[in-house]
Amino acid sequence: MTTRPRPREVGIRLGTLPVGPHHAITDVPGVAVGHVSVVEGQRVRTGVTAIRTHGGDPFREKTPAAAFVLNGFGKTCGLPQVAELGVIETPILLTGTLSVPRVADALITWTLRENPDVMSVNPLVGECNDGYLNDIQGRHVRPEHVFAAIDGATGGPVEGGAVGAGVGMTCYGFKGGIGTTSRVVEGFTVGALVLANFGAREELRIDGVPVGRELKDWGEDTPAPRGRADAGGAPGDGSCMIVVGTDAPLDARQLGRLARRGGLGLARTGSVAGHGSGDFILAFSNAQTVPHRPASVVLERRLLAEDGLAITRLFQAVVESVEEAVVDALFRAETTRGRDGHVRHGLPIEPTLDILERHGRLAIS
Amino acid sequence: MTTRPRPREVGIRLGTLPVGPHHAITDVPGVAVGHVSVVEGQRVRTGVTAIRTHGGDPFREKTPAAAFVLNGFGKTCGLPQVAELGVIETPILLTGTLSVPRVADALITWTLRENPDVMSVNPLVGECNDGYLNDIQGRHVRPEHVFAAIDGATGGPVEGGAVGAGVGMTCYGFKGGIGTTSRVVEGFTVGALVLANFGAREELRIDGVPVGRELKDWGEDTPAPRGRADAGGAPGDGSCMIVVGTDAPLDARQLGRLARRGGLGLARTGSVAGHGSGDFILAFSNAQTVPHRPASVVLERRLLAEDGLAITRLFQAVVESVEEAVVDALFRAETTRGRDGHVRHGLPIEPTLDILERHGRLAIS
Amino acid sequence: MTTRPRPREVGIRLGTLPVGPHHAITDVPGVAVGHVSVVEGQRVRTGVTAIRTHGGDPFREKTPAAAFVLNGFGKTCGLPQVAELGVIETPILLTGTLSVPRVADALITWTLRENPDVMSVNPLVGECNDGYLNDIQGRHVRPEHVFAAIDGATGGPVEGGAVGAGVGMTCYGFKGGIGTTSRVVEGFTVGALVLANFGAREELRIDGVPVGRELKDWGEDTPAPRGRADAGGAPGDGSCMIVVGTDAPLDARQLGRLARRGGLGLARTGSVAGHGSGDFILAFSNAQTVPHRPASVVLERRLLAEDGLAITRLFQAVVESVEEAVVDALFRAETTRGRDGHVRHGLPIEPTLDILERHGRLAIS
Amino acid sequence: MTTRPRPREVGIRLGTLPVGPHHAITDVPGVAVGHVSVVEGQRVRTGVTAIRTHGGDPFREKTPAAAFVLNGFGKTCGLPQVAELGVIETPILLTGTLSVPRVADALITWTLRENPDVMSVNPLVGECNDGYLNDIQGRHVRPEHVFAAIDGATGGPVEGGAVGAGVGMTCYGFKGGIGTTSRVVEGFTVGALVLANFGAREELRIDGVPVGRELKDWGEDTPAPRGRADAGGAPGDGSCMIVVGTDAPLDARQLGRLARRGGLGLARTGSVAGHGSGDFILAFSNAQTVPHRPASVVLERRLLAEDGLAITRLFQAVVESVEEAVVDALFRAETTRGRDGHVRHGLPIEPTLDILERHGRLAIS
Repeated sequence: MTTRPRPREVGIRLGTLPVGPHHAITDVPGVAVGHVSVVEGQRVRTGVTAIRTHGGDPFREKTPAAAFVLNGFGKTCGLPQVAELGVIETPILLTGTLSVPRVADALITWTLRENPDVMSVNPLVGECNDGYLNDIQGRHVRPEHVFAAIDGATGGPVEGGAVGAGVGMTCYGFKGGIGTTSRVVEGFTVGALVLANFGAREELRIDGVPVGRELKDWGEDTPAPRGRADAGGAPGDGSCMIVVGTDAPLDARQLGRLARRGGLGLARTGSVAGHGSGDFILAFSNAQTVPHRPASVVLERRLLAEDGLAITRLFQAVVESVEEAVVDALFRAETTRGRDGHVRHGLPIEPTLDILERHGRLAIS
Repeated sequence: MTTRPRPREVGIRLGTLPVGPHHAITDVPGVAVGHVSVVEGQRVRTGVTAIRTHGGDPFREKTPAAAFVLNGFGKTCGLPQVAELGVIETPILLTGTLSVPRVADALITWTLRENPDVMSVNPLVGECNDGYLNDIQGRHVRPEHVFAAIDGATGGPVEGGAVGAGVGMTCYGFKGGIGTTSRVVEGFTVGALVLANFGAREELRIDGVPVGRELKDWGEDTPAPRGRADAGGAPGDGSCMIVVGTDAPLDARQLGRLARRGGLGLARTGSVAGHGSGDFILAFSNAQTVPHRPASVVLERRLLAEDGLAITRLFQAVVESVEEAVVDALFRAETTRGRDGHVRHGLPIEPTLDILERHGRLAIS
Repeated sequence: MTTRPRPREVGIRLGTLPVGPHHAITDVPGVAVGHVSVVEGQRVRTGVTAIRTHGGDPFREKTPAAAFVLNGFGKTCGLPQVAELGVIETPILLTGTLSVPRVADALITWTLRENPDVMSVNPLVGECNDGYLNDIQGRHVRPEHVFAAIDGATGGPVEGGAVGAGVGMTCYGFKGGIGTTSRVVEGFTVGALVLANFGAREELRIDGVPVGRELKDWGEDTPAPRGRADAGGAPGDGSCMIVVGTDAPLDARQLGRLARRGGLGLARTGSVAGHGSGDFILAFSNAQTVPHRPASVVLERRLLAEDGLAITRLFQAVVESVEEAVVDALFRAETTRGRDGHVRHGLPIEPTLDILERHGRLAIS
Repeated sequence: MTTRPRPREVGIRLGTLPVGPHHAITDVPGVAVGHVSVVEGQRVRTGVTAIRTHGGDPFREKTPAAAFVLNGFGKTCGLPQVAELGVIETPILLTGTLSVPRVADALITWTLRENPDVMSVNPLVGECNDGYLNDIQGRHVRPEHVFAAIDGATGGPVEGGAVGAGVGMTCYGFKGGIGTTSRVVEGFTVGALVLANFGAREELRIDGVPVGRELKDWGEDTPAPRGRADAGGAPGDGSCMIVVGTDAPLDARQLGRLARRGGLGLARTGSVAGHGSGDFILAFSNAQTVPHRPASVVLERRLLAEDGLAITRLFQAVVESVEEAVVDALFRAETTRGRDGHVRHGLPIEPTLDILERHGRLAIS
């Protein structure tokens, strides 16, 4: 468990909306997160993260959802059925790029274990490329890792940084990984969890301050970060998986509107969604589930009215949560050594806070 | 190998455009198809089919492509990156629904074998649900099956019916599976290959004749066909994967236009794209490939002009090819017995031809 | 008023679902249709058709809707907001291509008349190109025509053929225009209204019978039909606007699913959605409206469950209705003479029925 | 002509890429911009802005283009055909919301004047809602204004702020309107022009500094800005039209990638793309045009290779240009009085610069 601070603990205030109790996607009632880190020897630095959208069976009680693909250079599986039916029917899994199929297969096995009659299920697995630190070709995430991440998922505080799917990730040239937070607005909660693995160092902005440019020469002289090491090595390569959850009663079309705002939060941290960066946003609402076997032809649903302020405030909550989740990942991720002597340094906290203070951006400075 | 006739051999003429030499997607120069049928004991009735888009390495020489999702109740993986980058970088694999992740994983392994430095690749795998005849939960397609399908792919005649991914499929209440044909138009070839696993018997039309209604009571009293057996058992459930290839010089946007016509071909055979039918169309052009490592910043490309007749004729070729490919699958697929005593009968050829002749639809009658 | 028969009156049975009382989109309770034909001198052959989705004010009570663009070579206005908000807020207007802006402007005026405080409204206007018969450049549809079409809209029987927006249209080389019908299924009604202006004569199929090929040389030797006369004159050019309405409680995502089936109905009549054919499908549900000023933050909604047979039957109803609506347009449209001596002949009824009878496709033959 | 400074003139440096000579979209060779302001009496505060994509005839030489709709609460017309064919065939016009149809109609007239044989043309008109300052219901933009904007378009310096379509616009609670700039990268130029009419004052950020929060109480006590005054009056309502041009050889798919980055630039200025804000991005490339009547079936094209750094740098150029164009609009727009005593104040330059200097964000401070 990291002892590095979270951004709010050191006076960083991103946006203006109030935050939920755990500063995590789990502030949305019913949402649970589980991580399994897979760290073996010198070369294996990977893992898997599971997000459960509610406390029930995800297949029998499907969750309204929608995705937006800001930049589709990525291998996420499961999206066409989400687009068609507007629901997800498994936990949401995150992992390293080349492990997507094995995690998806394990997710099928897990579903069959819970629902032995199932003959068709849509596993939803997102990814970023952890190949700089991890022996990605080895595909080291095994079914038991997946089961443990799902079955061990809990509400409450969520570990962040170099944990679960985040073990091998890189963000803005520093160690990246898992970040999360939430906002409370109009009586609803919006939470975001990101798997952050993108960006060139000089692009990084925290609360609008160009921290990355000032830290450009910090640390030893490592090669340029390249999340997608085979893709040309362009600055800004990598990926970001963004999961947004809420208990506001939204249907798939409305959740698609939330998803499209996810990129705006990324942009506030400096991202231009570089060519090689698979930037995917998935948004779900657990206000109501959709039964696999409906008891009647017509369902009764509650739906947020789209006139007036409420929906815009939810958009704002998405933008602020995503922005802060990225910064949370950077603050919490510790320096990690991986394959072939590759090292990714954690964002240096003190220099970063110095820069922010100099720009007048610390709430408690 | 089936001895059942192909539709053209018995006088069926769908559409008006000329056909290529093999009546197959392999009439597009460079395209190759490989099947591996996986048939074991009483319960395993599945397989895998590989389509290679050109004779070179699919990763180093990527193929322009686009998809259209007519009905996204399906688990095809790889589409977001196709949408973003407009290319595919692996062979196109088809299999049973729950085997998609294992086939995708094998496709990664195959790619790494050919290109040991790859750290990111987008496996493209489509599926239909063969759960009526096959122990689908067992996921019996193994890596060696995938490698054999890819490595054994050839040009020339293409086996059809209950072969490869088609072993366990059902179409319009009869045995379905693989069908293919082509059209030659404006100096270019358009080919289609379908994995046909959809439709209720009474919906079937051949060359506009409502054959299915007339054959409604043919054969023993089997339960209603249910491709997606867990999805409510609605008539018309199932899926259809459609792959369209051409050597016309088209870019991804234009290929998307071709893909959208695939559903029109399906419709001619009677489909209404039922709720549970994952109907996906993928279109590719091998007129020019896109190098993984371009030698220059600007590429020279040829592009079909969209004014005038040529593009409409390509659309027509798609519609006719898809229509005929579905009928080809039905004609070639032999009666198959599978798990738990389930039987799917091949379309009865003579009664079908009688019906068509009665409606004046046989060219040589 | 035409005295030509509608297809059902002469024994044509397209599909198998039961039809509503008026064989029209107005069989959906609350839906009304109004036509104004604009025929002046030798050169003006155009008009406008209005579809009202319910009996109330369309702006204050918005109607859930979605569109699918099968082929976007068209000038329909209003679709981006429909995609975002999932509602329409004006009557749906149809007219000739170059008249879209003037009709949209009149629709704004009409909305302001009904709701004097409105400062933003999304006029929804579809079009086909009537330039073969009509002086299209003259843009002869005036505001009073638009108001009369909207204010005169009624339920009950709907005029078809060369009326309203259909006055100058061409379909499969014959006189085209307005066609409509409905289906009753699962306790709901689905209706379709088309503005048919597409296709080459040899493509036409009626109930699967290649009527167009048999009628290829019927009538005088007119030039090939060219709905979009400036677009290269390719066979198959033109357009088709399809409006689908229902009283089934569907949200925008589900209506999008219905809209995607519209093209399947077109395909059954022979269309390949040629390059120059702007084929747009708009689907709406008036089961519940969305208030412009909601009384509460959360609305109560009813929603069709998507498991089981009901939604597939609605899809089938769309396919059958669209297919029949196109044939209805052809049957009802009378021979029309327009600008510069151009003539478009009505489909010859007797020869057509002879062909259908010969193929055993007439119910009462 | 405003005497207010542009942001670069007072030391604001947004992003890191070099700027073209005019800090305008006209830095893309061949691009021209024309404004006509329509200001009459106390109530008419509107106008029209035309962007010509190259020096030739826009219909005979079509321009590759693509759009992204970040938030579709808007009335832009012409997008479906752009999506289908990947080209635009008229100048791009911007105006006030309810004037879109009249401007589109004038654009048809203009096209017919230049090309008397045209029977189908796709007018492309974007809009924001200037109803706070302007008698928007009056639709005061007339054909002669449109012709003058198009025919008077020139390269070189571009007027900004309260000019042309920008006359009546509001941005972040201050006077908004037209802003523009460019970036030069990899030997290509990328330019952006925005019609800025969105945002609540407290959202505004300039170079990451929360200027809006500090200026919250600046100026007299005006009601909250409401671009879309009928839409609930939510903070953040309004719209932003973004036009991105480049001379890099990009096809429609690639231009769609650029368009999706436009929202990231907006986000940097503080926008969350509020519910009522119709945020549309149109991107075009004039590196090569597409002839209306191609001379051959196959065209030769140049296409930017998407491997490596170049495309990411173009993305960065889009983000930086859009960010700066919004700030440019704010800096240049002068206080404007309109209908019913409504006043929108120009961003106060000195207080703004003081804030930026205090945060260490002025290059020459």
